[in-house]
Amino acid sequence: MAGKPGEFDLISTYFAPLTGDAPGAFGLADDAAVIAPPAGMEVAVTTDAMVAGVHFLADDPADAVAAKLLAVNLSDLAAMGAEPHAYTLATAWPRGIQPAWIEAFAGGLKAAQEAGGIVLVGGDTVATAGPMTLSLTAFGFVPPGEALRRGSAKPGERVYVSGSIGDAALGLRLLLAEIGAGCDAADRARLIGRYRQPTPRNALGVALRGLASSAIDISDGLAVDLGHVAAGADVDIDIDAAAIPLSEAARRLVAQEPDCAGYLYAGDDYELAFTAPPSADPALRDLTRRLDLPITAIGEVTAPAGAAGTVRVLDGTGAEIDTGGAGYRHF
Amino acid sequence: MAGKPGEFDLISTYFAPLTGDAPGAFGLADDAAVIAPPAGMEVAVTTDAMVAGVHFLADDPADAVAAKLLAVNLSDLAAMGAEPHAYTLATAWPRGIQPAWIEAFAGGLKAAQEAGGIVLVGGDTVATAGPMTLSLTAFGFVPPGEALRRGSAKPGERVYVSGSIGDAALGLRLLLAEIGAGCDAADRARLIGRYRQPTPRNALGVALRGLASSAIDISDGLAVDLGHVAAGADVDIDIDAAAIPLSEAARRLVAQEPDCAGYLYAGDDYELAFTAPPSADPALRDLTRRLDLPITAIGEVTAPAGAAGTVRVLDGTGAEIDTGGAGYRHF
Repeated sequence: MAGKPGEFDLISTYFAPLTGDAPGAFGLADDAAVIAPPAGMEVAVTTDAMVAGVHFLADDPADAVAAKLLAVNLSDLAAMGAEPHAYTLATAWPRGIQPAWIEAFAGGLKAAQEAGGIVLVGGDTVATAGPMTLSLTAFGFVPPGEALRRGSAKPGERVYVSGSIGDAALGLRLLLAEIGAGCDAADRARLIGRYRQPTPRNALGVALRGLASSAIDISDGLAVDLGHVAAGADVDIDIDAAAIPLSEAARRLVAQEPDCAGYLYAGDDYELAFTAPPSADPALRDLTRRLDLPITAIGEVTAPAGAAGTVRVLDGTGAEIDTGGAGYRHF
Repeated sequence: MAGKPGEFDLISTYFAPLTGDAPGAFGLADDAAVIAPPAGMEVAVTTDAMVAGVHFLADDPADAVAAKLLAVNLSDLAAMGAEPHAYTLATAWPRGIQPAWIEAFAGGLKAAQEAGGIVLVGGDTVATAGPMTLSLTAFGFVPPGEALRRGSAKPGERVYVSGSIGDAALGLRLLLAEIGAGCDAADRARLIGRYRQPTPRNALGVALRGLASSAIDISDGLAVDLGHVAAGADVDIDIDAAAIPLSEAARRLVAQEPDCAGYLYAGDDYELAFTAPPSADPALRDLTRRLDLPITAIGEVTAPAGAAGTVRVLDGTGAEIDTGGAGYRHF
């Protein structure tokens, strides 16, 4: 055969180096990869897809798109308490895409996978007449029966979140120039950075095994995602709005533009939300120190008042705050 | 939360039933699935994406699209000698897609997964402004070190293929009305069926562990795919064109329209091509009987004449046949 298809050149040039010579990746040159779990470990598997113009902006930098694609999947592994191990990548590139874009995308993957402790082991590359469509499947290891589930919260437990909430949603609205006329450059950069490159909480997820009764990562919005936790466990959840941890940048922006408060529930945080009994508090304080990551109690699990699965966000007077139907709807 | 996003309705209605209550699928209601390999097994992982208008025709029946998506991934597991276990699915549906289409698609998955011995354990569902884009990641089990690789063919070994070659490529050209004016209805249906719903050769793949020195599934075209086997092992491969097994329907069509012979190398067969020493012949004859599947010797592995990796397709006089540069190019 004279001349190989472009697919193979793309793979060998930009993607094969991302395997880090993992033996089961076979240099991305075989029909499948092989993952060998350590003795006594099972394999957690998650898939998240992103479409240009829907899940990221068409002019977002290539390396940030790559980092976000990996981060959202790492975040799902974190929410299961699984240690990141490897991933596969399916890319549908728009016809006419520039090699420089793909090179920058691969560079973004490289940085993100090094931070996340994960390597590429396989994938597929196709062309599309439509918008760029990226699908990543991530694999992590978790001991049998220790995966953090959504449906095990019990009344009397507390609800916690990691890090700060709302930064990413504010960052997106800043990018869209919908808000932030008075926002200074440093805050602007911080909030946009949190939208474009979320930080998955994998060390926390692994540490929460045996400590949290349930966990979820916040992608669609704090209230929406906690709704899944509540519905799965047949409980309700009450959130104290004043307890929700905000970054300094978010706090300043909401002080300047109070209407921005609604965006705090709009998702893309990729922080972990979890439930645990009050007895876990000392261990969680230790974790905050060890991981240098805030863990904040924001509410409690309650017995269902009516149909289970209701999340109420309450102000200081106990009145319910309208979170706007709350969060991202996919259709 | 009053009213859940449409994504969750789609998943619970059409896709959750495809888990077959697999415990690690968690009803498609958690952040990730968990796969528990049997003791002593590793996990083979493969991802293949398909885009409407590229990998299938926009008016192909929904159930056939689903069956093909699963089949091409099962075929990769077959080529590794891995036993099918589970899969995840990422779908980007075009806006405005009809629920009836998605229902028929899920029905096609159900039939194909029952035939293939595999269940759905996770995935993601997004919307796109572009063509439908489907990505499936399949998992199979294989003992350590026993996966069938591409790069281990040795001079003096024989090259074999399963089933018949060329049906699918002829079926596609029949669908496109490029050929087949004189083709009868039954042959037409058979060949189109082979294009739309290939049969992955998983039982053969598992049986070839320890018997074949290398294996690949034929997706891009017989000569192109054997080129990967040859290049990976630093050998050449000579194919005897007259030995390539054709179905009766393909044989009749090529007799009527000799120009169709070029399509025999155009791919989409999803048969296995593999190499094995001549001593494997009796075991392969047994396999043919046990699996009721033709296995045909079509050529031999040779020491490289120049740069390794050359596949020559030879006619009865030993002259090289031009396979048209041969097979599908992705870009």
